[in-house]
Amino acid sequence: MARLAILAGSGGLPPRLAAVDPEALRIGFEGVPQDLPEPVQSFRYEHMGTLFDALKTQGVTDVVMAGAMSRPPLDPTAFDPVMMQQLAPRLVAAMQGGDDALLRLVIAIFEEQGFTVRGAHEVDPSLSPTPGVLAGSPLSEAQEADLVRARAIHTALAPQDVAQGCVVENGLCLGIETIQGTDALLRFVSETSPHLRKGQGLLFKAPKDGQDLRIDMPAIGPVTVETAARAGLSAIVIAAGQTLVLDREALTACAMELGLSVVAVEV
Amino acid sequence: MARLAILAGSGGLPPRLAAVDPEALRIGFEGVPQDLPEPVQSFRYEHMGTLFDALKTQGVTDVVMAGAMSRPPLDPTAFDPVMMQQLAPRLVAAMQGGDDALLRLVIAIFEEQGFTVRGAHEVDPSLSPTPGVLAGSPLSEAQEADLVRARAIHTALAPQDVAQGCVVENGLCLGIETIQGTDALLRFVSETSPHLRKGQGLLFKAPKDGQDLRIDMPAIGPVTVETAARAGLSAIVIAAGQTLVLDREALTACAMELGLSVVAVEV
Repeated sequence: MARLAILAGSGGLPPRLAAVDPEALRIGFEGVPQDLPEPVQSFRYEHMGTLFDALKTQGVTDVVMAGAMSRPPLDPTAFDPVMMQQLAPRLVAAMQGGDDALLRLVIAIFEEQGFTVRGAHEVDPSLSPTPGVLAGSPLSEAQEADLVRARAIHTALAPQDVAQGCVVENGLCLGIETIQGTDALLRFVSETSPHLRKGQGLLFKAPKDGQDLRIDMPAIGPVTVETAARAGLSAIVIAAGQTLVLDREALTACAMELGLSVVAVEV
Repeated sequence: MARLAILAGSGGLPPRLAAVDPEALRIGFEGVPQDLPEPVQSFRYEHMGTLFDALKTQGVTDVVMAGAMSRPPLDPTAFDPVMMQQLAPRLVAAMQGGDDALLRLVIAIFEEQGFTVRGAHEVDPSLSPTPGVLAGSPLSEAQEADLVRARAIHTALAPQDVAQGCVVENGLCLGIETIQGTDALLRFVSETSPHLRKGQGLLFKAPKDGQDLRIDMPAIGPVTVETAARAGLSAIVIAAGQTLVLDREALTACAMELGLSVVAVEV
């Protein structure tokens, strides 16, 4: 029988998954803030061998990584034997690359240990909405035109492993998401000189081509809505089924209050 | 016989063109700062008919637009007949679009009047260097790898009329130029969280696909070098023959002092 363990970072997502699957084991990491309800079993990154044993002993078959996990400095003198002999050399090599490389390796390591690694959207499909209007009005004709342009830009870039998001306003591209993330993109857009602004653009969010949705799945939350409003945008459009909507009630309320539309479309 | 008129905006480019072609007519516009040496004939945007007549009377066959031209508010009560009857409706329509649309129309209007519109790089080919190292060392192996990635991103986006520039560092894309321009891109890169920085990236500059190089030709100058250095970059790579290098002596000196390489490559 399948049994899930939630490997928790910070934010509201891990508690939500715990509510959806109350039988799931709750795992935290020392030095990584998390808000899971008790009981939580806590481990050190240095003791991955111990973690694998604990999960297996308790019948865990599936794991989900959720929430933001910082990278605390590792203390090599504390490595357990599995970490020391099998994992550390690979992890150190991957840490030279991007965050994606490290996360891909962590997933591979859990899979080698026999666990099925699932995405948050698989544990709770309601996190990623089906096509439709989540808040505000349906898209206007001008917004639909901007969406066409945003999707063309996204499609052009997706094979390059760039651009989970972009902002288009009245046909002009005001910004393309790079590794700094959506909030940084929206702050950049908010600093655009007024003479280049021709309306109230939209933010489009979708995964890159062939992206493993268990890693860094595109996500929006109430803060995205606030930041988009401060950047003078009128809509957020997400790829249905491929984008996490965090804290959906608060997000919807925030969007209604600020006059933003939030729409999920088939991509 | 060809005779040139320089339609001047601000910056060092118009005086340089005037030095290259001392016989060229020097044209300024009221409300638009420019640094041409005298004699300069000054016109109002509202008096385009008067400008056309003056150019033709003086035997002008070719025009070059150079320097940054702001868009002062037009006073319709001052329009001359040509402006009022033939140009104003088209200009007003184009002003709803992007800067490119307006500039394309201005070029078309000058061509309809029988003038040949030339780019600054045609008037002074030395403005746009041939392939080679302009300053600093040739690219390292790591920089060559980042250049390959930057060119792939540029190539993917160029058909979308986006991205005269992008920044890549150790394989990661740190920013893509949108309508805010290169300096805004570099400021954005400089604000990247240190934990996402893995080295000293490079800026790649090249025109978009099918771009009319008489309009908004990619350009770098000493300020680009300074801003790139502040953003922690180690190199600027430009498309040879398709990118203007302004104030080249100062740019080279600045790059040497700050330890940046500036390299032109065949694109």
